[in-house]
Amino acid sequence: MSTPTSTRQWVLSNKPTSLPVLSGPNPTFHLESAPLPPLGTDQVLLKTLFLSNDPAQRGWIDANILPERLYIPPVQLGEAMRAYGVALVVESTAQALPKGAYVVAGTKWSEYRVLDASECQEIKEVEGVGLTQYLGALGLTGLTAWYGLVEVVKASAEDGTVVVSGAAGATGSMVVQIAKKMLGVKRVVGIAGTEEKCRWVEGLGADVCLNYKSKGFKEELVKATDGFVEVYFDNVGGEILDLMLTRMKRFGRVAACGTISGYNTDEPVGLRNYLEVIMNRVEIKGFVVIDYLPKAREARERFLKAVKEGKLVVGENETVVDTAFEDIPKTWLKLFEGGNTGKLVTKLT
Amino acid sequence: MSTPTSTRQWVLSNKPTSLPVLSGPNPTFHLESAPLPPLGTDQVLLKTLFLSNDPAQRGWIDANILPERLYIPPVQLGEAMRAYGVALVVESTAQALPKGAYVVAGTKWSEYRVLDASECQEIKEVEGVGLTQYLGALGLTGLTAWYGLVEVVKASAEDGTVVVSGAAGATGSMVVQIAKKMLGVKRVVGIAGTEEKCRWVEGLGADVCLNYKSKGFKEELVKATDGFVEVYFDNVGGEILDLMLTRMKRFGRVAACGTISGYNTDEPVGLRNYLEVIMNRVEIKGFVVIDYLPKAREARERFLKAVKEGKLVVGENETVVDTAFEDIPKTWLKLFEGGNTGKLVTKLT
Repeated sequence: MSTPTSTRQWVLSNKPTSLPVLSGPNPTFHLESAPLPPLGTDQVLLKTLFLSNDPAQRGWIDANILPERLYIPPVQLGEAMRAYGVALVVESTAQALPKGAYVVAGTKWSEYRVLDASECQEIKEVEGVGLTQYLGALGLTGLTAWYGLVEVVKASAEDGTVVVSGAAGATGSMVVQIAKKMLGVKRVVGIAGTEEKCRWVEGLGADVCLNYKSKGFKEELVKATDGFVEVYFDNVGGEILDLMLTRMKRFGRVAACGTISGYNTDEPVGLRNYLEVIMNRVEIKGFVVIDYLPKAREARERFLKAVKEGKLVVGENETVVDTAFEDIPKTWLKLFEGGNTGKLVTKLT
Repeated sequence: MSTPTSTRQWVLSNKPTSLPVLSGPNPTFHLESAPLPPLGTDQVLLKTLFLSNDPAQRGWIDANILPERLYIPPVQLGEAMRAYGVALVVESTAQALPKGAYVVAGTKWSEYRVLDASECQEIKEVEGVGLTQYLGALGLTGLTAWYGLVEVVKASAEDGTVVVSGAAGATGSMVVQIAKKMLGVKRVVGIAGTEEKCRWVEGLGADVCLNYKSKGFKEELVKATDGFVEVYFDNVGGEILDLMLTRMKRFGRVAACGTISGYNTDEPVGLRNYLEVIMNRVEIKGFVVIDYLPKAREARERFLKAVKEGKLVVGENETVVDTAFEDIPKTWLKLFEGGNTGKLVTKLT
C-alpha cells in the first residue's frame, strides 16, 4: 500500500440545538476529503481503527454553549469532528513510536491523521485488556468514574450507599465496580433503562439495579434507598436527579458528571425538589475529567492491578459496533438512544 | 396586672401547598385562646414583644415536605405557629433570669408563653444595637450570612467577586456588609427587586446592586459580572439561580441558602443552564443555619466588634412593622411580597 496523501473526514456543518440530524437540508455533519500534510520531524501518520463515542462530544458542537463557558475550545464549523480513537501507526519519523505501534490519540472522525508523536499515547494489548479498553475502562471513562468517586465526592468504605444513574453506560458500569469492589462501599444501587441492562449491572457487582422505565420505579427506588444515601453519581440529570434529591442523606454528595437527558433538548432541567438541597445540606459538585488527566497513569495502573485481582471486569463493559466510515455519526447517535451497555466503541470496517 | 392564666395564639389549621391564605373556608391559621400552665422550677412566663419573620417558617408548615426530610420537626396541625421572638420576662422562678429581663426565645405566635429559663437567651440593649437586632443581624440571620460565607463557600479577600440575591433582605443585607467590609472581598454585586432597594444595598457597601425587575437586567448582570464570579450567595433560587450559573467562574461556589421564589408554588425550579454546573465545575452547597448554632456566640461577638468599628450597620437593616396580635400572619406574609428591606420584624402593639 502506498502512503495515502488524503483522508476522508466527517466535518461539522451545522451546530445543533437539539438532536443532531444526519440528513435533510441542514445536516449536522458532512463527509469530505482533505489532503494530508507530509510527515515532519517526530511525526506519525495514523490510521484510525476504533473511535470513542462520548456524550461530551455533544457539548463541543452545541449551538447555544458560549465558547468561553466550555472547558475546551468548541469544534468549529468546517472542522473535522473531534474524537478520541485507537489508531495504528502506518508511517513514522519518530524513533519512539515506530510503524506498527498502536496508540490512543485525538484521531478526530478522520480515516488518517498526521500528529506529533508526543500527542499520541502508545498502548499494548495485555491479558484481559484489549485495545478498545484504552478508550473506556482504561481511558477517560475509567478516569471519570475513579476521580469522580474518589476526589469529587470522596466515596469510601465509610459510605453506606452509592447510587449511580446511567449504570449500564460506559462511566456508570465503571462506577458500580469501583465503588463496590475497589472502594468497598457497602451498598451500590444502579439505575438503568432496561431490565436486561439492570441484570447486567447487577452482574458487575451492584446490589440492585432499577429500571427507570418500569412503572413502579419511584417506589422501588424509595425501597432500595431506605435510610437514604450518602453519594449519588449522576450521569443523566433531569427527572432522575430531581428524584434523587429526595433520597439524599443529610450532607449527601452528588457528583454531577453528566446530564444526558438534557443534551438534545432545549427544555430546562425541572427540579421540583430543589429545596431538598438546602434542607438536607446536599452538595452538588460538577466535574470534568480533563482536570484529572495528569493523574491518568496512576489510575490506569490501579485498574490493571484490579483486573489481575479479579476486582474489575473491563472486557465486558463495552459495545463494539462494526461501522463503515460513512456511518460514524450514525453509530455515535446510538449514545442518545440508550442502546449500548458499557462503552460504545466504533470499530471501523 | 395580675398574672395571665391564658394566652391568645395563632394555630396552624391547614398545611399550604402554595401561598398561605388568611381567609376563606380553609385558612392556613386560626386564632384561639389556650390556658397557660403554672410556672415550675426555673421557669419564666414570657410576654412577646417582637416576632422574627423568616422565609424558613414557610417550610415548617408545608403540605408536601415529608417530616423526615425537614431539618426540624414540622409544625403540627393544631399547634401554635413556631417563631422566634424577643420577649419580656413577666414572671420568673429562675434566679438567673429575673422578672424584667429581655430574652430571645421560641415564643411562637403566642402572646404569652411559659418556658424553662434554659430555653431563653438573655439579651441587652447596647449602643448601636437595639433589642430587635437579636432577631436579625445578631441573631439567626446574621449567623446565616456569616457562616454561609465563611464556612459553606469559604469566601475571603482572595475572591474577586461575590454576588448575592435577595440583597435587600435580612440575610442578603448582612451578606453584602460581611463580604465587603469584614472579609475584604474585592467586589460585591447585589440583586434586589426595586431601584430603591438597590440604592439602599449600595449604601450598605455593595459596589453595585441590580434590579432584577428592570428590563435590561440580564445585560446589566453580564456587565456587572464581567470576568465571572467566584461566589454566589443564593437566597432566591429559580430564574436568578439559573442565570447565575452562566456567570460562575470555573470552580465557582454557590451557597444555597434559600429559594424564596419557589416557596409558594408547585412549579419546579427550571434550570436551563444546569450543564454549566458540570462544564465549569460549579459547586452548589445547601446549608441550614441551625448547624452553626453552637457557634452563635462567636459570631455575635464578631458582629458587636464590627459595629463598634463602623464596619457593620445593624440598626438600618430592619423593617419593623407595628402589628396587632390579630394581624401577625398578615405581617409575616409581607416576606413573600418583597416589600421589606432588611429583617422584617413584627412589633406587637
